[in-house]
Amino acid sequence: MSTSNVHTPAKPVQMVRHPSGNPVGKPATRYLLNCWYAAALSTELPTEGTLSRQLLDTGVLLYRKADGTPVALHDRCPHRFVPLSMGQRHGDDVVCKYHALRFDCSGACTHNPHGNQMIPAAAKVRSYALQEKWGFVWIWMGDEPADPAKLPDFSALDDGPPTGIGHTYMHMKANFELIIDNVMDLSHVDHVHGEIISTRGQLTPQIPPVKEENGSVNVRWEWQQTPPIGILAPFLPQPSQSARHFVSVTWHAPATIQLTIGATQDADASLTLDQTQGQYDLHTCTPASATETHYWFATRRNHAVADADFNQFKIQAMHSAFVDEDGPIIEAVQREMGTSDFFALNPVLITSDVAPVRVRRLLARMIEQEGRFA
Amino acid sequence: MSTSNVHTPAKPVQMVRHPSGNPVGKPATRYLLNCWYAAALSTELPTEGTLSRQLLDTGVLLYRKADGTPVALHDRCPHRFVPLSMGQRHGDDVVCKYHALRFDCSGACTHNPHGNQMIPAAAKVRSYALQEKWGFVWIWMGDEPADPAKLPDFSALDDGPPTGIGHTYMHMKANFELIIDNVMDLSHVDHVHGEIISTRGQLTPQIPPVKEENGSVNVRWEWQQTPPIGILAPFLPQPSQSARHFVSVTWHAPATIQLTIGATQDADASLTLDQTQGQYDLHTCTPASATETHYWFATRRNHAVADADFNQFKIQAMHSAFVDEDGPIIEAVQREMGTSDFFALNPVLITSDVAPVRVRRLLARMIEQEGRFA
Amino acid sequence: MSTSNVHTPAKPVQMVRHPSGNPVGKPATRYLLNCWYAAALSTELPTEGTLSRQLLDTGVLLYRKADGTPVALHDRCPHRFVPLSMGQRHGDDVVCKYHALRFDCSGACTHNPHGNQMIPAAAKVRSYALQEKWGFVWIWMGDEPADPAKLPDFSALDDGPPTGIGHTYMHMKANFELIIDNVMDLSHVDHVHGEIISTRGQLTPQIPPVKEENGSVNVRWEWQQTPPIGILAPFLPQPSQSARHFVSVTWHAPATIQLTIGATQDADASLTLDQTQGQYDLHTCTPASATETHYWFATRRNHAVADADFNQFKIQAMHSAFVDEDGPIIEAVQREMGTSDFFALNPVLITSDVAPVRVRRLLARMIEQEGRFA
Repeated sequence: MSTSNVHTPAKPVQMVRHPSGNPVGKPATRYLLNCWYAAALSTELPTEGTLSRQLLDTGVLLYRKADGTPVALHDRCPHRFVPLSMGQRHGDDVVCKYHALRFDCSGACTHNPHGNQMIPAAAKVRSYALQEKWGFVWIWMGDEPADPAKLPDFSALDDGPPTGIGHTYMHMKANFELIIDNVMDLSHVDHVHGEIISTRGQLTPQIPPVKEENGSVNVRWEWQQTPPIGILAPFLPQPSQSARHFVSVTWHAPATIQLTIGATQDADASLTLDQTQGQYDLHTCTPASATETHYWFATRRNHAVADADFNQFKIQAMHSAFVDEDGPIIEAVQREMGTSDFFALNPVLITSDVAPVRVRRLLARMIEQEGRFA
Repeated sequence: MSTSNVHTPAKPVQMVRHPSGNPVGKPATRYLLNCWYAAALSTELPTEGTLSRQLLDTGVLLYRKADGTPVALHDRCPHRFVPLSMGQRHGDDVVCKYHALRFDCSGACTHNPHGNQMIPAAAKVRSYALQEKWGFVWIWMGDEPADPAKLPDFSALDDGPPTGIGHTYMHMKANFELIIDNVMDLSHVDHVHGEIISTRGQLTPQIPPVKEENGSVNVRWEWQQTPPIGILAPFLPQPSQSARHFVSVTWHAPATIQLTIGATQDADASLTLDQTQGQYDLHTCTPASATETHYWFATRRNHAVADADFNQFKIQAMHSAFVDEDGPIIEAVQREMGTSDFFALNPVLITSDVAPVRVRRLLARMIEQEGRFA
Repeated sequence: MSTSNVHTPAKPVQMVRHPSGNPVGKPATRYLLNCWYAAALSTELPTEGTLSRQLLDTGVLLYRKADGTPVALHDRCPHRFVPLSMGQRHGDDVVCKYHALRFDCSGACTHNPHGNQMIPAAAKVRSYALQEKWGFVWIWMGDEPADPAKLPDFSALDDGPPTGIGHTYMHMKANFELIIDNVMDLSHVDHVHGEIISTRGQLTPQIPPVKEENGSVNVRWEWQQTPPIGILAPFLPQPSQSARHFVSVTWHAPATIQLTIGATQDADASLTLDQTQGQYDLHTCTPASATETHYWFATRRNHAVADADFNQFKIQAMHSAFVDEDGPIIEAVQREMGTSDFFALNPVLITSDVAPVRVRRLLARMIEQEGRFA
């Protein structure tokens, strides 16, 4: 993938490493564990150095082997608890900075230069299963064997040239469920965002149908607006005339939302991506901790797919909308809520909350079930 | 009131919003609740925008209606907990930034643009009773009906032209009782402050009479000094000669102290404000949290009352004395005490502590009684 | 002592004062108490002002009397808990800034200017016994009578001219035991440090003998390397040829480590300081709190002892090695461990851990015994 499709924020994020107090790399908070979370964009993983990222309260060391295979290890030497990310690569292994213990990609200790050079049986770093798909590296942090089939199919992201897709990474000082709430209830868009994604008052009054199916939750809006939504209008035959629109948003456990939006001025077209000017987006979140979240966004469009400049402009515009417009609101809510449970605060729910509330309840049930059989 | 009489600090205060975890706007700490606290200076309340201020652990939204009436609401939308201060005014109503729910001055939801537009019965924001008097807006945050008569009479602040009174706002990183202690025991002034309020060693050796009356506590000092106290000397007939002085300090629950100081060189004058060169001051505190306090000061004088330049100079000088001289000491004590109870730390009390200790014990009793009948 | 032998960091340390909530100056964490900790370098103690330093969770006020005797008091007025360091010296006494209570070097209140000027019997500040030796001021913070004999003999530090010894102060955001671990296990030096103290792979493979004697723990390495260790090579007859080396490291409770290193190319020399080119070092730590530590280092060498410029260069180089190379690793370990107990995290121990683990267990036993008889 060309890096020109990736937009990353200018300033590095300062994050306090959670002292998990757990040498085997298990999270401190209660998350759904036996499932796939995004760990990084494919472009974020270095071939020579390493990337350290806090995922589910746990420091995770990410890098690529010489053959390109991605690797994830607990970012902590089991000897004296130094983050392995302070050390060096040694081919596909990593060497701890403090006492030069060396570990391979499976987390096994392959070299102890000290004394009799015996390697203690316990000298193992936890490793995590990964899958690399659609520009993302996905991680499995649960105790059950990693099940590749549990990662939903987002292969539509690969449908087209590299100049038709953009990826971006964001960091939010908020619990991940607040970000999911925000995408599952699009009734906020006319109030929070500017012209480019305004529905001109058409989306808010709707009571959208919500479907729960195979552990996922879908919500769908259809409407007509004049002129069409700003991100699609320039690609329609009559950019200032009325068009029919749809947006379909589907949450998959634990924290990935697939959103498809389209608009058409053809009276006979069906409201599907292939019969409209539209885009296929992925929003995916991974908790760093209970109050900080890694947030990635990818968008594949079916128009102007060869325009590299527009591609770069578009992903930057989407990034700014999320960071500058949704971000401050979501982070303010986090500050108001502190560590309180959402429902314990007795929120006054309205019709537009049906989908996000359904997701919250379903996820809570899944976490409870996982705990029961653990 | 002319803004020229108000002095505010140059730098805005950065304060962490207390996550009260309470959607109905009740404090987390134990304060006296059924009473009047200062919420703002009259001049601080905007007619067009809003002011958000943390009072008793609770975010409070303050603004003026078009007709000038002040309004106080819990600064949190009951739907998704966004601070209403992030939103917009809509005439006398406020509109939440996130989903455009609209609330009137009573806290009732007046518009829900979503779905069927039904307004849930629970969609109410807590509103707080206010009184605006003597350049201050006073707030009642308790559960009992607001009782206007519980606000003591400080109407002497209105006695004279606007150029004879100044108001200022300060923020202290200390519990409010440490500020009350400081004003109820003036034996510190010669040690902490400079020339302008030095009693030249006359106040410290006294054991001042302390009276408790109708739930208020008064302490009074009288003394003779040469030259007279710096703030009054220039207004006496012989600025370098001896003068008789008095200062009378009265605490009213929960956190307001009225201080009158005067000096005279007339042997027949009684030591009262009307027979001396003097001033009538108000110190009033409102806890932002257990460790941060809003602190306001107002001073009405009976001399040079038409001199606007002197008025401005004087309020700035008083502001600086409190912020630069008392402030660092009080904040250092807060850091030493942490969240420990004052008496639990076994302070070694001396004669000058009689008045502040009386206040602490009386306030504790009032809080205990309020709790008993709640 | 000439100040030219002392290296201090350029930036002052910002440390949050631990609110011990304890007016008699006892620590909040469990430390060994009836023993000597370093409080300051002799050069750090002012004759005119005062130095405030947090030791064992407690603010300690340090200064010198007019006759040079060092003084240590709890840095808190027993009246209203103002740090005495905010006040003024009054000869050998200190005067509180807030209400001018005055205390002598024993902590007795010598003046109360208020009211009847009676001094309450309880108006005492805790004072701490001190010993000044070898460029350090040592403090005894326990409840038992200070026992001078419990301070080990480090008089070798005084063996030679002022240009043959350097002292430096460092501040680490880590528990003191992590610093002790680091010095008791020198197998890290080839991995963490640069050329100047590299053993060229000779130290790491050893299993050094560890001795526990009279409550101290010693570990000793001997080896041969070519060229000799960087800090000593220039002072050997053939700087690029092989030399025999030794390093002997002895921990004394609670937190002082004496390290002697030497090298020789004389086949008949014994591996002792007097028969080698070498140095006699002291590493001593005092917890500021459970997660921050004062760390001092002194080094006396037996070569080039008259070279003042080299002396200055050397202490700066050592300071930089500790701060820039050991520091980041030790502080990262602290962040990983949080407040967890080291053994509770199940560290995977290797042969080089014998000495530091022996120290940890011995110190834990001493703390437990002290608690039992307290």
